[in-house]
Amino acid sequence: MNAFEKLGRKNSEGRFICVGLDTDINKIPVHLKKFPEPVFEFNRQVIEKTAGDAAAYKLNFAFYENSGAEGFETLKKTIDLIPDDVLIIGDAKRGDIGNTAKMYADSIFNYFRCDASTINPYMGEDSVQPFLQFENKLNFILALTSNPGADNFEKLRLQNGEFLYQHVITKVNDWNKKNNCGIVFGATRIDELKNNLGLINKLPVLLPGVGAQGGSLEEVVKSFKEAGRLNYLINVSRGIIYRSSNKDFASASAEELNTLNTKVKKELDM
Amino acid sequence: MNAFEKLGRKNSEGRFICVGLDTDINKIPVHLKKFPEPVFEFNRQVIEKTAGDAAAYKLNFAFYENSGAEGFETLKKTIDLIPDDVLIIGDAKRGDIGNTAKMYADSIFNYFRCDASTINPYMGEDSVQPFLQFENKLNFILALTSNPGADNFEKLRLQNGEFLYQHVITKVNDWNKKNNCGIVFGATRIDELKNNLGLINKLPVLLPGVGAQGGSLEEVVKSFKEAGRLNYLINVSRGIIYRSSNKDFASASAEELNTLNTKVKKELDM
Repeated sequence: MNAFEKLGRKNSEGRFICVGLDTDINKIPVHLKKFPEPVFEFNRQVIEKTAGDAAAYKLNFAFYENSGAEGFETLKKTIDLIPDDVLIIGDAKRGDIGNTAKMYADSIFNYFRCDASTINPYMGEDSVQPFLQFENKLNFILALTSNPGADNFEKLRLQNGEFLYQHVITKVNDWNKKNNCGIVFGATRIDELKNNLGLINKLPVLLPGVGAQGGSLEEVVKSFKEAGRLNYLINVSRGIIYRSSNKDFASASAEELNTLNTKVKKELDM
Repeated sequence: MNAFEKLGRKNSEGRFICVGLDTDINKIPVHLKKFPEPVFEFNRQVIEKTAGDAAAYKLNFAFYENSGAEGFETLKKTIDLIPDDVLIIGDAKRGDIGNTAKMYADSIFNYFRCDASTINPYMGEDSVQPFLQFENKLNFILALTSNPGADNFEKLRLQNGEFLYQHVITKVNDWNKKNNCGIVFGATRIDELKNNLGLINKLPVLLPGVGAQGGSLEEVVKSFKEAGRLNYLINVSRGIIYRSSNKDFASASAEELNTLNTKVKKELDM
């Protein structure tokens, strides 16, 4: 099953929540410190309890890279635990010149065996193309992000009247020859989301920013519903994985994921 | 000695060439395959022969990440070999929301102990700030890159008449409160370089694109000289490290570096 199909199947089952495994050693329950690899043990238990209900897992590479080789080992082992029917997003936001982007794509898709990537578009087409050569993968390209800094460049008005992020979305539609492109759009940007669903067209959308960053789950679901669109993922990281700092942390994550799934289904009358 | 001082000292000695250790296992001499860590052995020999004449080393993380944890181990061990007076640039081009960018900065500066980073500005100020908290480091923020894709977004004209990359340079000047910002500007963009040296002002410039990508060393040196500017680095990767595929590869790299240094000094009448 390729990445696009995996996402479609989950979405059709009413699963839209992506669990962000942004696991910070300083935020996990203290009792896990006795394990040889506390972050891996945390991830293992969270995946065990949530895999049946998650539409996807998103692993932000930064949270592993700050422990260097050991962190990469944990990242790889975590990815290997995720069941085959759940989409795995390598959230690395890479972007570099062609021959280098090829190496990054190789890392994310061949070494780490992710189903999907996130890509920073700043350097343009040749920095994205090596990722698009992987026909069975999905590539979520940053359009309008959830953070305050999105105002600095992404929301600059171009001479033709478009915002920069809108021009990125147009380009991503052009690049989508193999049906393996998507975009990242911040759930904190609900008005812009509504106004751009036409431009986004059929591209799958990854939406971070619900929870700690203030985006509204219901608003996102409602916006897509009104547009008759059902191919997207709402990422929640801290809001799911840090629900409890006791031994029940994984069950607490699963419970929160269930609550979110129920909210989504209610909005969708499913 | 902080990063800014390291660069200043090398530049004042007529050293402007940054050796790019973009070491590709498929491009190194075959006889190295007998070593337990061929890429490390390649880097070790190149550093041994070039450290006295290099202004800096730039390590593009992509070339190590595609071997995962093992690659990160090689990257760390390579960095540990570089003498303290030579600037080490962690060319990772990261960019993510604030709490995540903090992790990336931690990885590049604390774990890998690089002196400098490269940063992708697309996501704006809060994605850059965690790097700028490191007062003794240097952060080269992507402005106009050397690749063809730079035309897609970086060279878009904004409503105020500026190009996007010019607006990035303006912002980087604003962010440079701690004198720890620089920019990346492609050596393949010589006309734009000349026209923007005023805007770039006192920011140190990292220039990739000489050699395999077609930029001219002499043109770059001449442009800075005419502007009375002497704080920059010209990166050469493939053009230096792959001069020979025999046992003399490291000496051949050193020879090429010397040739480039001589060319620079000639342009500068040093």
